[in-house]
Amino acid sequence: MSECFAREFSKSVGSLSEKELIRRFCGALKPCMPPPPEGAGDDCAVLPKGSFPQKNILSTSDAVILGRHFLPETSAFDAGRKLLNRNASDIASMGGVPVYAMTSSIISPKISIEWLEDFARGLKFAAQKIGVKFVGGDVAGGDGGFFSMHLTLLGTVGHPILRSGAKRGDRIFVTGSLGASFESGRHLTFEPRIKEGLFLAKCGNVSACSDLSDGLASDIFDILPDGESAEIFADKVPIFDFSGNCLKKSLCDGEDYELLFTLSNMSDLEADAFIRNFKAATSTEISEIGRIVPSAGEKSNLYLVDAFGVKTEFKNTGFSHF
Amino acid sequence: MSECFAREFSKSVGSLSEKELIRRFCGALKPCMPPPPEGAGDDCAVLPKGSFPQKNILSTSDAVILGRHFLPETSAFDAGRKLLNRNASDIASMGGVPVYAMTSSIISPKISIEWLEDFARGLKFAAQKIGVKFVGGDVAGGDGGFFSMHLTLLGTVGHPILRSGAKRGDRIFVTGSLGASFESGRHLTFEPRIKEGLFLAKCGNVSACSDLSDGLASDIFDILPDGESAEIFADKVPIFDFSGNCLKKSLCDGEDYELLFTLSNMSDLEADAFIRNFKAATSTEISEIGRIVPSAGEKSNLYLVDAFGVKTEFKNTGFSHF
Repeated sequence: MSECFAREFSKSVGSLSEKELIRRFCGALKPCMPPPPEGAGDDCAVLPKGSFPQKNILSTSDAVILGRHFLPETSAFDAGRKLLNRNASDIASMGGVPVYAMTSSIISPKISIEWLEDFARGLKFAAQKIGVKFVGGDVAGGDGGFFSMHLTLLGTVGHPILRSGAKRGDRIFVTGSLGASFESGRHLTFEPRIKEGLFLAKCGNVSACSDLSDGLASDIFDILPDGESAEIFADKVPIFDFSGNCLKKSLCDGEDYELLFTLSNMSDLEADAFIRNFKAATSTEISEIGRIVPSAGEKSNLYLVDAFGVKTEFKNTGFSHF
Repeated sequence: MSECFAREFSKSVGSLSEKELIRRFCGALKPCMPPPPEGAGDDCAVLPKGSFPQKNILSTSDAVILGRHFLPETSAFDAGRKLLNRNASDIASMGGVPVYAMTSSIISPKISIEWLEDFARGLKFAAQKIGVKFVGGDVAGGDGGFFSMHLTLLGTVGHPILRSGAKRGDRIFVTGSLGASFESGRHLTFEPRIKEGLFLAKCGNVSACSDLSDGLASDIFDILPDGESAEIFADKVPIFDFSGNCLKKSLCDGEDYELLFTLSNMSDLEADAFIRNFKAATSTEISEIGRIVPSAGEKSNLYLVDAFGVKTEFKNTGFSHF
């Protein structure tokens, strides 16, 4: 594994011209970067007509910053993979397919060339899995040991699944299992739920969807209609790691990158069939964890219901990226 | 003019939650930010079909970093305006029209809320002039006094003007005047050459185009074919400021954001008519400053020809952003 900061000047990006740096970075992205004008090399990338065959275009931007989203000792490959996949998770949550990525970065001269190439190989690894092309970007020098890379990802979708369609009585589901994402390393190695999002986009009963980045207890509010609340069945939450205060961690830890979604107008029998069909189509487990219910007051709340049916308000609002 | 760093905690972005910060920033962008799902508020922006009516999509990314592209004492409004316009300049140089912008930023808790809103108002001012909509973005906290904002701009174009079409004998032109961009403040207040780029895209003789960001003496190499060189007539270079070593500054200073382009297969009479028509259509002056010529050796070079016809190689390679 390469080290983040170069031990000799000749192995640092500070020893390269801007053009050489871009050439090294783009070289490590091959074959995921087409030649210009589609790929890097002109003033803009030219994305040919027909690039977005499902017609609506999805666009999302997210960054990784050294010291914040990953540490100097994190594998550069894993950090690069995470950068693409956290953006792809946003596309997945709307039922779309990622197509094109652009990067914009700030790179300290101290960063090791080899480390930066490993980062690019992580981007490439993730891009090849999901069929994304890199089509250019921008690089600026940074002070001290600073490194950040911002990625904009464009995707395509027929009918996007919005956050805003849930209504009272809807069933609440999540994919996979939740919590301990940092301890387990899943915040780096997760796979974006693209095929799962595609399955949901084809299912007429899905009323809302988002991906879990700040923790269920926080992100649930993004899909609650005004004045409605969520009731979560504590014993149905799929817990990744049963050590410590595992329920709280599953509700409050950030960076699960699982899908949180709601289903409307379904009987128990239909919901059981949905769960079986979902598993058969995607090989991914899903859990029905709650319902959209009326609020006691005017505000939206999160209620936990324990195995005895006792209902309490849950106050923790999860992980904040800021 | 608001100050960059807040004097009291309550006036700093550190006193806001991530959601409040985004709400303040987006509020200052109104009416340039449509409601979700097109504008910010869902996992991705949904750009409806028909958003890119001229069919090819142009995409470019550029950032501004506090201390590098502008200073703490720079007007936040000007810095915001610059961020959008330097991206729009890349779209203009391919003959396109900007449509959608996304931002991704790193913001220190010390930054003043009022300063950030002024920055957003600068973005909005530039966006309203050229008809751009903001459709979301991302924000992360930064250490110390760090501030950067990265912008991805999408545009539309029928037939893009590439950097790669020039050939031996082509005439070399620039719009406007060059040099002293920092001293004069034009690096902040320039207007992207969109209508000029549109005029060029409709003219069949334009063989290559790029915008001048690192200085003519550097950027000329981006449009030179392999093994061809550029001959620049020293007395034809449009100099903005005649003080000091003005020719060198005009060739080497960065951030002119003028268009550099080449015309093929034109007689002197046709070129004169082109210059008149360009001025009539755009109200912008252009100067014919040189020719694409054969290289003495294998490498591309830049030659200066003085008023006596004496030709010398020009070695300075302009401003480096890195």
